[in-house]
Amino acid sequence: MDSKSNSSSAAALTANRVREQLPDDWKILRDVHELLQKQNAFCVSPQQWGEQKIVEFVQPSELKQLINLKIEEKETHSLSEIEKLCQLVIRYSVKTSHGRFHNQLFGQLDPYGLAGAWITEALNTSSYTYEVAPVFSLIETEVISTVCRLAGYDEGVGDGIFSPGGSMSNMYGVVLARYKRAPEVKTSGMFGMRPLAIFTSEESHYSLKKAAHWLGFGADHCIAVRTNGRGQMELGDLESKIEEAKSRGWEPFFVNATAGTTVLGAFDDLDGLADLAARHGLWLHVDACLGGSALLATQHRSLLKGLARANSFAWNPHKTLGAPLQCSLFITRESDLLARCNSIEVNYLFQQDKFYDVSYDTGNKSVQCGRKIDAFKFWLMLKARGYSQYGHLVDHAINMARLLEQKLRARADRFRLVLDTHEYSNVCFWYIPKNMRGRQETAEWWTRLYTVAPKIKEQMAYSGTVMVGYTPLASRNLGNFFRMVFTCFPVLEANELDILLDEIEKLGEQ
Amino acid sequence: MDSKSNSSSAAALTANRVREQLPDDWKILRDVHELLQKQNAFCVSPQQWGEQKIVEFVQPSELKQLINLKIEEKETHSLSEIEKLCQLVIRYSVKTSHGRFHNQLFGQLDPYGLAGAWITEALNTSSYTYEVAPVFSLIETEVISTVCRLAGYDEGVGDGIFSPGGSMSNMYGVVLARYKRAPEVKTSGMFGMRPLAIFTSEESHYSLKKAAHWLGFGADHCIAVRTNGRGQMELGDLESKIEEAKSRGWEPFFVNATAGTTVLGAFDDLDGLADLAARHGLWLHVDACLGGSALLATQHRSLLKGLARANSFAWNPHKTLGAPLQCSLFITRESDLLARCNSIEVNYLFQQDKFYDVSYDTGNKSVQCGRKIDAFKFWLMLKARGYSQYGHLVDHAINMARLLEQKLRARADRFRLVLDTHEYSNVCFWYIPKNMRGRQETAEWWTRLYTVAPKIKEQMAYSGTVMVGYTPLASRNLGNFFRMVFTCFPVLEANELDILLDEIEKLGEQ
Repeated sequence: MDSKSNSSSAAALTANRVREQLPDDWKILRDVHELLQKQNAFCVSPQQWGEQKIVEFVQPSELKQLINLKIEEKETHSLSEIEKLCQLVIRYSVKTSHGRFHNQLFGQLDPYGLAGAWITEALNTSSYTYEVAPVFSLIETEVISTVCRLAGYDEGVGDGIFSPGGSMSNMYGVVLARYKRAPEVKTSGMFGMRPLAIFTSEESHYSLKKAAHWLGFGADHCIAVRTNGRGQMELGDLESKIEEAKSRGWEPFFVNATAGTTVLGAFDDLDGLADLAARHGLWLHVDACLGGSALLATQHRSLLKGLARANSFAWNPHKTLGAPLQCSLFITRESDLLARCNSIEVNYLFQQDKFYDVSYDTGNKSVQCGRKIDAFKFWLMLKARGYSQYGHLVDHAINMARLLEQKLRARADRFRLVLDTHEYSNVCFWYIPKNMRGRQETAEWWTRLYTVAPKIKEQMAYSGTVMVGYTPLASRNLGNFFRMVFTCFPVLEANELDILLDEIEKLGEQ
Repeated sequence: MDSKSNSSSAAALTANRVREQLPDDWKILRDVHELLQKQNAFCVSPQQWGEQKIVEFVQPSELKQLINLKIEEKETHSLSEIEKLCQLVIRYSVKTSHGRFHNQLFGQLDPYGLAGAWITEALNTSSYTYEVAPVFSLIETEVISTVCRLAGYDEGVGDGIFSPGGSMSNMYGVVLARYKRAPEVKTSGMFGMRPLAIFTSEESHYSLKKAAHWLGFGADHCIAVRTNGRGQMELGDLESKIEEAKSRGWEPFFVNATAGTTVLGAFDDLDGLADLAARHGLWLHVDACLGGSALLATQHRSLLKGLARANSFAWNPHKTLGAPLQCSLFITRESDLLARCNSIEVNYLFQQDKFYDVSYDTGNKSVQCGRKIDAFKFWLMLKARGYSQYGHLVDHAINMARLLEQKLRARADRFRLVLDTHEYSNVCFWYIPKNMRGRQETAEWWTRLYTVAPKIKEQMAYSGTVMVGYTPLASRNLGNFFRMVFTCFPVLEANELDILLDEIEKLGEQ
């Protein structure tokens, strides 16, 4: 027997064995929910928060000893061995659904969102054609038109797409704006053009700079605009930087507003920016990845006043609302531009001789080919709760942030707010350890204060009791402070805020 | 009571109600597996394939009547109503795990992959720092270094990242190559440079053209190279197009090879291309999104001969191997380039004053910020089966494709192959209806033949018995033919091929 038929029969033999074993292998899905429950991955009930750790933190080198990560050629594992491995993975992972995880811009999951995610993973299809995703194509369209309505567009106006995250959604904005300004870039590129300039505030998300790099503009042509005391882009500085760019021979074409900055949660003045953008002929994009959820709010919707006048915006329901990561929308008021900008003739996917209305094949609007069904989980959430419930939960999260500010002020000897008031559900503050209180606040005192948050963070990791992120803010020459961000889930009660502050005090004195 | 405190108390009221209802809401996760089973979403056992439809196809307008898609402000739904809605969604979705779904480049899921996907969705974290994804950070590193080893890199050489799909992975290749050639583009952009030119075969994936557009090169600077009879890029034509580009004043810098073209499954000559790329100083990227799975194969690994000499490649385990969508790897031989090219100073995420080794924070290599944990599902699959089992399954899938060719030849009066032999697991063929057999094959005859596949496809949709894709191939002036792609799952037996061909014949005569 030669080596080729040898390996050919080995393939057939293994294929048989795998085929016979498959019914058993599929049993793992039956057990996933139980595996997660056993390790308390969803630590949902407040009664559990005090008992269960958010994370059982171990250093990388130690973790490598605890879980056999090595992938081998021939080593196989039985269903029960794989389940044991999964238990270890869950055990040493961060429980982001624990009610005291406030470390990122996202928090606890909405169970309907997770159910939607599990179902789409199981149906494992792609958002490019009605043929392979009939229900999901209609659902994506429905969600997008609902969001266009919420944004204040007229009936039938607007278009959009789900993309794999806010950075990509912002890139869609830049690419569309460039295509609108100079459609020839699609074929000829940007060589030989005079530099196109992007404007965004110094406190905006880094994805704009990364987009400038990737899309060929260069980070130098992504110009940082100063912010005011509240973290909003200064329109005066924007205007003078536009003029400065023009005087260099650059062509201003795009301004990014931020609705909910990453650190302070500040909202730019969208109406003012819309006026300014109109005056200078710029595309106005709004990075509302964080703050877009205010669209649903009753009490705080005015934060987004002017949004309908922007040319496009990005919104991540996976942040405030508790949709599972990734759930990011790019929306534009320019109805046909997405398809015109991104489409290309693709015979094997977007045949025009199909037996159904091919306008339901939306894949050609995308820069991707295969694309996950991110719309369904969000749709299921909205169906379950109606958007008004989320609106009230967003309001509640912001109200809790205001309450936390009050409580921080009431502990003014121990805590210091970065801003007097924040606009959204972010609250930024320092903890002042006992031995630093009542001292003169010299430059040295502040330098020392900036080292406190990282030390408390370390204690947080080892105790697993609470997780709150920290960050410096270079644009204000500020060193490390805590940034606590409230989300729709967990739905916090007021007393939880005292528990949190008490815990930070406790860890701060260790 | 003024309107602000009115809506404030409405928020508190709703928050209370949602909080109280949450324990019930979380029950939906317990039921997801059962919901999927009830609707036979995983139609895994061959015994079911004849009885269960792959899709219950209805036209868009009708589907809108069958499922209430509308999102309302105040309408909420109970757990059991949501479960009924989910059942409808599952019912009218395509069962891509049905053993007779052969419509795309992906097929049935690997259950371990799906279990991994469910667990990462549940743990809902992001691949940027060790802090929020300790286990998953190590797992991504482990998978990447395993793939580097499989690609033939020396110990410690190579780097990579999971990206949201093959189009993005190919974009990583272009961006890295551009940065290597001209690091100043990161800051200054491409304005004023002489045009940089990309070369790729006329049968390569459209993502290269979309990348050329997005990244600012323009589609005109993405030059299509002719293919030979087997669908491979012609090195002679490449060389003359490089010279032609140079003579126009353009700067050739990037050649994309395809390992497994979308339609024919052709593999470019990587060794030949590596020689040519070296000669002309080009970055060689390999789009192995489809064919990368041959890395694991024993019998067919030589298809990728020369891969180790390429500067980078993309590989989607969500295609052949049955990992859930999205699971796409970008790998490069240039060890530190990803981080240097894409990094940016991001204080709130990538602090350097952390309490663990921050080299485990890999998010700065990415163009994204939040990034799904796509590594874990693939890792779990590899742990469960070892990579040699996948190797044999890949071999088996390719062997089945060869067997199908034989069977098509045995029915030569009714079927016609597009190529005599294909290299990978794709098989392309026409069905010749009874009333066209034995006739003179005039231009009209062929034109008529090209209308057959779309009609059979319509029958497939309504019968739900089998799904096989069809496509024309413009580069060869060929009209619609079927493209059947074998994947690791389902693990097919030989007799299944006759069942498939019989079914196409049956539908073809209706």
